[in-house]
Amino acid sequence: MAATPWYFVAVLLTILTSSQGILTTLSQSNGGYKYDYATVPFLAEVFKLIVSALFLWREMRTSSSTTSRITTDWKSVRLFVIPSLIYLIHNNVQFATLTFVDTSTYQIMGNLKIVTTGILFRLFLKRKLSKLQWMAIGLLAVGTTTSQVKGCGEASCDSLFTAPIQGYLLGILSAGLSALAGIYTEFLMKRNNDTLYWQNLQLYTFGSLFNVARLIADDFRHGFEKGPWWQRIFDGYSITTWMVVLNLGSTGLLVSWLMKYADNIVKVYSTSMAMLLTMVASIYLFSFKPTLQLFLGIVICIMSLHMYFAPPHTLVDLPVTNEAHPKILKQVVVEEKTDS
Amino acid sequence: MAATPWYFVAVLLTILTSSQGILTTLSQSNGGYKYDYATVPFLAEVFKLIVSALFLWREMRTSSSTTSRITTDWKSVRLFVIPSLIYLIHNNVQFATLTFVDTSTYQIMGNLKIVTTGILFRLFLKRKLSKLQWMAIGLLAVGTTTSQVKGCGEASCDSLFTAPIQGYLLGILSAGLSALAGIYTEFLMKRNNDTLYWQNLQLYTFGSLFNVARLIADDFRHGFEKGPWWQRIFDGYSITTWMVVLNLGSTGLLVSWLMKYADNIVKVYSTSMAMLLTMVASIYLFSFKPTLQLFLGIVICIMSLHMYFAPPHTLVDLPVTNEAHPKILKQVVVEEKTDS
Repeated sequence: MAATPWYFVAVLLTILTSSQGILTTLSQSNGGYKYDYATVPFLAEVFKLIVSALFLWREMRTSSSTTSRITTDWKSVRLFVIPSLIYLIHNNVQFATLTFVDTSTYQIMGNLKIVTTGILFRLFLKRKLSKLQWMAIGLLAVGTTTSQVKGCGEASCDSLFTAPIQGYLLGILSAGLSALAGIYTEFLMKRNNDTLYWQNLQLYTFGSLFNVARLIADDFRHGFEKGPWWQRIFDGYSITTWMVVLNLGSTGLLVSWLMKYADNIVKVYSTSMAMLLTMVASIYLFSFKPTLQLFLGIVICIMSLHMYFAPPHTLVDLPVTNEAHPKILKQVVVEEKTDS
Repeated sequence: MAATPWYFVAVLLTILTSSQGILTTLSQSNGGYKYDYATVPFLAEVFKLIVSALFLWREMRTSSSTTSRITTDWKSVRLFVIPSLIYLIHNNVQFATLTFVDTSTYQIMGNLKIVTTGILFRLFLKRKLSKLQWMAIGLLAVGTTTSQVKGCGEASCDSLFTAPIQGYLLGILSAGLSALAGIYTEFLMKRNNDTLYWQNLQLYTFGSLFNVARLIADDFRHGFEKGPWWQRIFDGYSITTWMVVLNLGSTGLLVSWLMKYADNIVKVYSTSMAMLLTMVASIYLFSFKPTLQLFLGIVICIMSLHMYFAPPHTLVDLPVTNEAHPKILKQVVVEEKTDS
């Protein structure tokens, strides 16, 4: 599986992430959820845990101990609780942010995490990017934001950027935490040669535990008025709800793969493209009105993708003219550049 | 004057072009013109003609005949009528376009001329651009368009992109003609070593004649009800109106300079940046509401500017690591480029 090209996984992640929004909308009835939405991420974690356990079991059976390394030292295992901890803090910050800003502003600020991911990628993982790649990351954030600009006639747009300062600061903190979780996971996955499935097993065990804790906390918050969570976990579940669970679990597994064999920037491009794909699909599925800003956002993001991933020499190679021998001309140009 | 750096002239052009919109707005009273607006371009042409004649006279007096070349052959002179002819056709196409589309759509389509200029620059002037420069030109058009996306609450936005197909075809034709005029002028200015002032003299003589013809045509169209144009040419003129004339004339002279010593792409960047500068200035001067799309458009255009004009190696050069000597590393990168 490690031999799969990363762009194949990235495209698959884009499609599944895009389906997630559509499936979630389809799983609603009369604009609300018939089921308890908090059960979805819990079941997705359990799904990922089972899949990873099965893969690990298969790998352990077929391969020698040298190819599938497993570190069971508690000093290593305990590191896998940190992503869950960051997500817990992130969820609370997210909740706090939404008490200060409306959902449109929150959505717009969400694009900041593209930039914060780039920054933490540089700072913590010490990965160097060219100036063009930095510009590409900036453009990706600008492109996704452009696609979300409220069109004319849309309601509740006067409130954009009129929220109290705390809202914006929390939004920035939220973007930072979201990026930190991704960057930390990449660090975890790449820090040693442990097999991916063992790393996943640890990650999703803590993930499942934190999700159970959340369901219990919800029960306490509501005073057990609807009974404990395990008695009503599948209440209101339809085929579509199950698809939402399986889809969320699958995207999680793909992200995990990318963290080990590609990187956070690839993930950020996948999920950003997925957002645009969802908007385009919504035009056909839910008769959304296509906007000029969506078209512009798509053009910007595709250019950004090209700027980031295309081999640099295909972008800036100076064209060959007829007057001079190409080699000589290039030498001259290079001389000029070096002097300045 | 030829020794002036082109970017200095480009910045000056940006500022003056941006002032043009503001001065024109300030010259209005109660949302309309007290003066005949058709007289403004005529007087601007005359202003440019006088300035060019003075500069030519000064140059002829001080320098030898070898440095200031003048081609008076009718075969050469007659070429200078073509820009005026293109503008005449362009004005009529513009007028026809506006009978099919509203002004917002017309304004949005106007950004197409950035792309058409790039294409004609490549086709007619045989100037080669790198892939990154093509992307930069595309982004400039996307950026200026983004800044013009109608915000929420703005009127008459449902009509965007619902016009008859003729409107769009004429819009494309208009963008093509606008680019053609610029590209042809650049060809004229660069085709021989004639002094700029002599080239200007020819250009503005035809320009003035065409503008007189237009004023006369207007008089005939209105049946001379207000008398012939020369009797009421300065009617309703204020200090601001004179500033509009001088400003328009000055921008024309700067564009002409850029056509000879820089190129059309520089001009396109100047005027696009000027458009954004006008919008920012309008926030302060006319209490325009700043929009998210204006901010995004500015970021996109600045990135585009950088992508187009920054020396390529500063954008894609792989960051220098401690292991290798910078110069050597650059050589390696160049080798890679050359091989492909």
